[in-house]
Amino acid sequence: MEIKIPVVRVKNAEIVEDVDLVTEEVPLTVYLNHEEVVTLLCSPEHWDELAVGFLAGQGLLRSREEIDGVEVDARRGLAWVASRVDRPLARKGVFKRMLGSGCGSSISFSFAGDNDVTRPLSCASTLKASAVLALMTQFQRQSDNFRATGGVHSAALATEEEIVVFRDDIGRHNAVDKIGGRCLLEGYPVQDRILLTTGRISSEILTKVARLGTPFLVSRSAPTAMAVNWARELGVTLIGFARGHRFNVYAHAERIILDQ
Amino acid sequence: MEIKIPVVRVKNAEIVEDVDLVTEEVPLTVYLNHEEVVTLLCSPEHWDELAVGFLAGQGLLRSREEIDGVEVDARRGLAWVASRVDRPLARKGVFKRMLGSGCGSSISFSFAGDNDVTRPLSCASTLKASAVLALMTQFQRQSDNFRATGGVHSAALATEEEIVVFRDDIGRHNAVDKIGGRCLLEGYPVQDRILLTTGRISSEILTKVARLGTPFLVSRSAPTAMAVNWARELGVTLIGFARGHRFNVYAHAERIILDQ
Repeated sequence: MEIKIPVVRVKNAEIVEDVDLVTEEVPLTVYLNHEEVVTLLCSPEHWDELAVGFLAGQGLLRSREEIDGVEVDARRGLAWVASRVDRPLARKGVFKRMLGSGCGSSISFSFAGDNDVTRPLSCASTLKASAVLALMTQFQRQSDNFRATGGVHSAALATEEEIVVFRDDIGRHNAVDKIGGRCLLEGYPVQDRILLTTGRISSEILTKVARLGTPFLVSRSAPTAMAVNWARELGVTLIGFARGHRFNVYAHAERIILDQ
Repeated sequence: MEIKIPVVRVKNAEIVEDVDLVTEEVPLTVYLNHEEVVTLLCSPEHWDELAVGFLAGQGLLRSREEIDGVEVDARRGLAWVASRVDRPLARKGVFKRMLGSGCGSSISFSFAGDNDVTRPLSCASTLKASAVLALMTQFQRQSDNFRATGGVHSAALATEEEIVVFRDDIGRHNAVDKIGGRCLLEGYPVQDRILLTTGRISSEILTKVARLGTPFLVSRSAPTAMAVNWARELGVTLIGFARGHRFNVYAHAERIILDQ
């Protein structure tokens, strides 16, 4: 959502008063079984998906069956998710580090008070190189349409043939979480699906996607070294710099096939 | 810091095995007076500045005099900051929302257990339009040099004449925090300084800059509507889309002057 605000434009030593479109940013506080989990700063759309996707990305929801209900109060910026499974919240943030002797810089995928470990994806699917390029062209076009204001990131879920869901948000994490939430709420299959994003691939984005269960992650931007390591470990085919007629595969390139 | 990793390049239906440079991403756990505050995922440089700047951005440190010492264990990714002033940590995240009747979507600048409210900057300084353009040209050149890998954001502190400190990081928040930490550690004056960033201006970046006390914030990207509102309220001159020969002023344009 965009809103009009007054702006002063300065160009070539000239000052003009004008109006400009800027993208909205609003707080959404997410509750899980009546316990406050987080306040996200986000775009004001698809809050049910964002709330569910955020919780799933943290490992606090794992299947559609666990979800007992989602309620959103759009006026006050609140979302309540009811779950049948009670998992303790990690109060100290997303990562619980293991700090023992000699493993100082390792991070576990588990959370405080939680024994879950994200499992490596095993997947026999392949993806055609031409499909990657065609999907990114479509994704970029759709993304450009949605960001007249230059202030949002986009994410999408796709099959090899087409984009199934497209979402944007001021936060690149939020955009990916909305896709994750939608998949969970609608029960979409993810096992051979492709996650597209406009944002850079950090380790946090990578783990969200691994948790979601999509084996292909494609970005027009760069991955970090940690994201590459985890993609290898977690079985995610990681594609970066997908622009024009080219892309780089940083992990699990064996799933990418050239067209005949 | 960048590291070399194997990559598979796909271009025009051809696959080539190659090596690529990707940017490092590592965890840094920050302690304040021996209490664990946060684990940041960041670039592995300038961790003393990042730790101090993060804490200051959260309102947990407010002046150089408060800092009793900073120690960094680079191998294990740990930073300890000792402060003379004991402030309770906000365990529920950055924002403490005020949810009363009729104020559902307001966010206070204060933190749980903390009475601090970020004060509006009052500042009589002006900034020449030509200086904004010259600084952004220099900043962009420096930023391009540092991001062969396409994976980092930059931030800088500048006077009207030149860039004083330049930092980059995989996170745009971290880059700004490093600048904030450097200012605090070195006791740099900030009252009439300019903060430059490559990233989008969200409300979180805006409040960091207001806390730091620099009255001018310049980005090549877009601000959100909430950032614009807070810039007006907190007395920050907010400049976006600073590219080539033009820029937009979203708040406190009265401080921008055209050259004679």
